[in-house]
Amino acid sequence: MNELEILEKVLPRLPQNADTVVGPGDDCAVIRIGDEWQLLAVDQVVSNVHYVPGQTTPQAIAAKLLKRNLSDIAAMGGTPHCALLTLAGNIDDGQWYLDFFAGLTDTAKQYQVAVSGGDIASLPAGCPPATMVATLTITGKVLPDRLCLRRNAQPGQVIMGTGRFGNSFASQHHLNFTPRLAEAQFLAGRFTVCMLDVSDGLLLDLGRIAQASEVGMELDVNAIPLRAGATIPAALGDGEDYELLFTVDSDQVEILRWEWPFDLPVTVLGRVTAAHPGLVFDGNGGNLFASNYSGFQHLNKQ
Amino acid sequence: MNELEILEKVLPRLPQNADTVVGPGDDCAVIRIGDEWQLLAVDQVVSNVHYVPGQTTPQAIAAKLLKRNLSDIAAMGGTPHCALLTLAGNIDDGQWYLDFFAGLTDTAKQYQVAVSGGDIASLPAGCPPATMVATLTITGKVLPDRLCLRRNAQPGQVIMGTGRFGNSFASQHHLNFTPRLAEAQFLAGRFTVCMLDVSDGLLLDLGRIAQASEVGMELDVNAIPLRAGATIPAALGDGEDYELLFTVDSDQVEILRWEWPFDLPVTVLGRVTAAHPGLVFDGNGGNLFASNYSGFQHLNKQ
Repeated sequence: MNELEILEKVLPRLPQNADTVVGPGDDCAVIRIGDEWQLLAVDQVVSNVHYVPGQTTPQAIAAKLLKRNLSDIAAMGGTPHCALLTLAGNIDDGQWYLDFFAGLTDTAKQYQVAVSGGDIASLPAGCPPATMVATLTITGKVLPDRLCLRRNAQPGQVIMGTGRFGNSFASQHHLNFTPRLAEAQFLAGRFTVCMLDVSDGLLLDLGRIAQASEVGMELDVNAIPLRAGATIPAALGDGEDYELLFTVDSDQVEILRWEWPFDLPVTVLGRVTAAHPGLVFDGNGGNLFASNYSGFQHLNKQ
Repeated sequence: MNELEILEKVLPRLPQNADTVVGPGDDCAVIRIGDEWQLLAVDQVVSNVHYVPGQTTPQAIAAKLLKRNLSDIAAMGGTPHCALLTLAGNIDDGQWYLDFFAGLTDTAKQYQVAVSGGDIASLPAGCPPATMVATLTITGKVLPDRLCLRRNAQPGQVIMGTGRFGNSFASQHHLNFTPRLAEAQFLAGRFTVCMLDVSDGLLLDLGRIAQASEVGMELDVNAIPLRAGATIPAALGDGEDYELLFTVDSDQVEILRWEWPFDLPVTVLGRVTAAHPGLVFDGNGGNLFASNYSGFQHLNKQ
């Protein structure tokens, strides 16, 4: 049983309470609490799974961990609020921890996130040197009319994306990316209520919108803006782009482009269709999940 | 540099925001959000550090992880709301995960906690078999006038505790305990605004109140209710009692005892003094931190 199979069995049975607006399965859960709703998400970074010890500074690991979570808050149309951290490792170099917290603090200040709690534990003896499991839970806020969910795509809308895709690892984009909070705030509620951040690859994440919304997706693979050094297959499958993928009513696209205040590219990538629910097709009617693109997997796929 | 030394350096520098009522350092952080305030805490359970693989069922590990966090919410005077989970391990037995989630789900339902998110990751190759790092972040709510903080003890108050202390590990209390949510709700705001849950040992945790409140503590060591099989040193040092330790105005003690609706014992353990701030003395004027009790450490001390 792999992670996805376990989650398929477990997710529908997880208990919720009367305040749950959206349970697990989107970028964040949404909890009714006051006039703004609360967003909750958690993510982890593991040595030799998500980074190579010695090749990535503790500051960069901490910044990546927080920014991954900020990207999830952005994708829901929200603003970040508080973070809680855990570290479990066998590193006994105190300076490593101080550097890690320095990176966390710098990034948290940059995005006005409070670091509200944490825990540091040991690992059992026998793990390889420099093993580290770092987790970060984030809370955020979202106005109910700005909430963006994967399930909200409508046939007839166009698919748009921010930035460029592919080659995230070799280019170091997976460490140096900027979470698209400002762009998401511009879009959420006004231009879109269906958005996610591309962490596991454009094709897989587009498929997630298709499945959650029970719509088809027609992707113009030649329209995808490529990051330097990226090919179309890399753009479809590499992952860790941390760009926004969202759907917009077709008559809003030109207004969006006109008002778009950011230097970052914003691109029409395709169309939402009623046909082929749950699937992603290319412009020539080819099922991308069944094509030779379908084999691409997130490099860090667990 | 050990965990405490790292935290001493790092905690005061962690960024907060305008909504922070109480930052890291108590059982939970307190965040202003709506009319009820939010409580946030995170804790972790690591194989061979917090439990022995093969001797503890996955259900019991999950229940302990959630109950530890529920105990923190109780200690603040709050009620639990939502939980987020991470697992990083090298267990490839799918049934282990299903059992873990069954234990989590049962306990979450019992306390009306929504399980709002999670993440499952791998560990790097080379860790010992059955290595697992499980973390759980909890959110809770507290009415501002019920909030209980370590810093709120006042000289002249008496120190009280729920339940019994010591021998938590051999007795399996560290797995089978009940978080004292109902008792804490009875006490918070009405009888006390200074409370914590005893996780690291009665003496160490009493010292934490003494330090945070800048008061002294006079502990009647012979008054401590002992768990079956426990000695006084074990009651002072073993930890993982998950009982409430709180301070009460002396003229409220008899009213509290009269109205106490629970079968659980509630006991006067000593007095809060203006003298010797930050220290814990026994009834004969002996500094317990400097005595032969001072060597006792949480068995799982990291």
